[in-house]
Amino acid sequence: MNRSPWTQARRAARMNPSIIREILKVTEKPGVLSMAGGLPSADTFPVEAIRAACDRVLSTQSKEALQYAASEGLAPLRAWVAEKVAALGIQASPDQVLITSGSQQGLDLVGKLLCDAGAPVAVETPTYLGALQAFSPYEPIFASLASDEEGPLPQAIEALPHDAPGTRFAYLLPNYQNPTGRVMGQARREAVVAAARKAGVPIVEDNPYGDLWFDQAPPQSLSALWPEGSIYLGSFSKVLTPGFRLGYIVAPTELYPKLLQAKQAADLHTPGFNQRVVYEVIKDGFLDQHVPKIRARYKANRDAMAAALREALPPGCEWRTPEGGMFFWIRLPEGLDAMALLPHAVEAGIAYVPGAAFYAHHPDPRTLRLSFVTLTPDLIREGVDKLGRVLHEALAAAEAPTP
Amino acid sequence: MNRSPWTQARRAARMNPSIIREILKVTEKPGVLSMAGGLPSADTFPVEAIRAACDRVLSTQSKEALQYAASEGLAPLRAWVAEKVAALGIQASPDQVLITSGSQQGLDLVGKLLCDAGAPVAVETPTYLGALQAFSPYEPIFASLASDEEGPLPQAIEALPHDAPGTRFAYLLPNYQNPTGRVMGQARREAVVAAARKAGVPIVEDNPYGDLWFDQAPPQSLSALWPEGSIYLGSFSKVLTPGFRLGYIVAPTELYPKLLQAKQAADLHTPGFNQRVVYEVIKDGFLDQHVPKIRARYKANRDAMAAALREALPPGCEWRTPEGGMFFWIRLPEGLDAMALLPHAVEAGIAYVPGAAFYAHHPDPRTLRLSFVTLTPDLIREGVDKLGRVLHEALAAAEAPTP
Repeated sequence: MNRSPWTQARRAARMNPSIIREILKVTEKPGVLSMAGGLPSADTFPVEAIRAACDRVLSTQSKEALQYAASEGLAPLRAWVAEKVAALGIQASPDQVLITSGSQQGLDLVGKLLCDAGAPVAVETPTYLGALQAFSPYEPIFASLASDEEGPLPQAIEALPHDAPGTRFAYLLPNYQNPTGRVMGQARREAVVAAARKAGVPIVEDNPYGDLWFDQAPPQSLSALWPEGSIYLGSFSKVLTPGFRLGYIVAPTELYPKLLQAKQAADLHTPGFNQRVVYEVIKDGFLDQHVPKIRARYKANRDAMAAALREALPPGCEWRTPEGGMFFWIRLPEGLDAMALLPHAVEAGIAYVPGAAFYAHHPDPRTLRLSFVTLTPDLIREGVDKLGRVLHEALAAAEAPTP
Repeated sequence: MNRSPWTQARRAARMNPSIIREILKVTEKPGVLSMAGGLPSADTFPVEAIRAACDRVLSTQSKEALQYAASEGLAPLRAWVAEKVAALGIQASPDQVLITSGSQQGLDLVGKLLCDAGAPVAVETPTYLGALQAFSPYEPIFASLASDEEGPLPQAIEALPHDAPGTRFAYLLPNYQNPTGRVMGQARREAVVAAARKAGVPIVEDNPYGDLWFDQAPPQSLSALWPEGSIYLGSFSKVLTPGFRLGYIVAPTELYPKLLQAKQAADLHTPGFNQRVVYEVIKDGFLDQHVPKIRARYKANRDAMAAALREALPPGCEWRTPEGGMFFWIRLPEGLDAMALLPHAVEAGIAYVPGAAFYAHHPDPRTLRLSFVTLTPDLIREGVDKLGRVLHEALAAAEAPTP
């Protein structure tokens, strides 16, 4: 009689707790300096501009803002997005713009529309964990693309399976990738897109970090190189606030109607209030002033972390200084395991994310991700010092003769 | 060379444009009195309370409200929901509450977790179109439950397939159902739940309208009768504002972890700002004062529409006066087709939704849905008068000898 009446779908076996999420719970102890989460600095949130925009929206358009709204999104915001991506070289009409509840929802809708059980989806090595989680319930087979410090290798894309069911798409983050921080150069972009066209594998380009460059803007968008073969995902989370959950998809006309239907089935529409407030904040060029301030702050943080890493980390650690975004990606010396070391690190008062979580296959246990945007430069130095001590101790223990 | 590189998932064939949405576009002409949409009256939106709450949230908790947040939802809001449903007889811990981006997202997450291709899902006849849209991409086979003016018949539930893959759940709207406005009496509820237990078919109970009763509160929640066999969906859209997209799931402990993972994959979390603002509005009993005002307004509208229908509709039309909610459900005389008549109605300056959209199988072309909450009583009378003239003319034409 106590048998459960519930039967879960086959896909439920592919829904798993985020390792990052579980780790964040462990690391949220008081006194722990966390470089684990991918949280933008709360000091960058334009509270006063948002407050003024909330007031304006509620004074002048409260009925529209609080009522049900169009699934496509707010028309002027869609037009703003079309202009924004035009500056990246993507020629798209506002009719190709779908406002989403964060770009995570964009990933879910893309998976829903394009993934069949058993059909391959290509991802970078490593790749954004949230994308793996979004696509997984749709039961694709992940193909991990051999990748270097500029991202996936064109020959890996050319070698993707193209017999039925075909590789449904390659999921690529060309700018300051999460987790590695790497950026694809112009030549690599051209080679990757040429390989994808040749292989008949379309591209899902995710660009949450593209505005967070430090010295020079990143090269041309992948979608600009192959508009009819690319879906572009953008977000307001890193340049304004993640707490409004506002992102967007720019899709080929061919795919738009079905994406829209998937959106409507998923949550009817993204909150109209949020869309109107964000549009009020940004419509007169606010981001042109605001984003450079975020860049300057994050660059100073990046510099502080780069200097601290040079001083504190033991020989044998490898990393590259990111040219934008939010993350350093560290590879530990042979014999160290970032997951195994995490409890010691938390004990010592710091936290990071072990890199293993970001691999679709064959995790590299020596990798870890450090965010440089959540803490202040002083705390970054303190945190990295502690990390250095943990690693030095671990190395000494590894090198000590076993008793 | 112009062959598309995109291959859509098999499930995309099950994503179709909402007929209602297409109809609403046609009916959104200036001068058309629309009784088609399911829009709450914008006059009920508590603009000042929301403005004050936005100010409070941005003054006292801006960093938390604008940052990434927990996928489960805001802790005090989850506790509020647990208390709210306790008043309906559902004993649930706040740990069983998942805040969703509107209850439409609740339907999507339920479908994602419980629907397999080819496994039956039972629905009322007719049922909420948005649920059919949410579940369809997960490729269930819909089983339309024989239903009367109190909802589904217990014997129809008992007769559901229980051999593998089994009926995954029965989707039920016991209170002032969309589209029919019907309510399940206490005896029917008990019989339905007993039948479901016997058949081993769990229940997904959707209750967006339960607070909108006019003379007496509806009977006990279905979930209260079978807690471990029920998922309960609620919403703030009808009692506060739909524009914030805020709903909730109360789920058995057994299902909660996977629902949470589905939520996280779908959009990380519902906007923290929206959750905090709504919690600020409601935390001190605001709804106890506010909801009775909505009830009084909607009851007056319901009465206006009931009187107008009695006066204006031709003999042979059938309807019941709803005891709550937002809709009248009309069945036209033999020979009339609500979809075919819609262009004439729009021409005459009014709009409704043909009922055919709400059937999983065998639509009844004589049915239509009228909302009584969007227009004022005067406009309701005017609209129903026009509808009456359209129907009288159509009947006259149908009865005229064919030339």
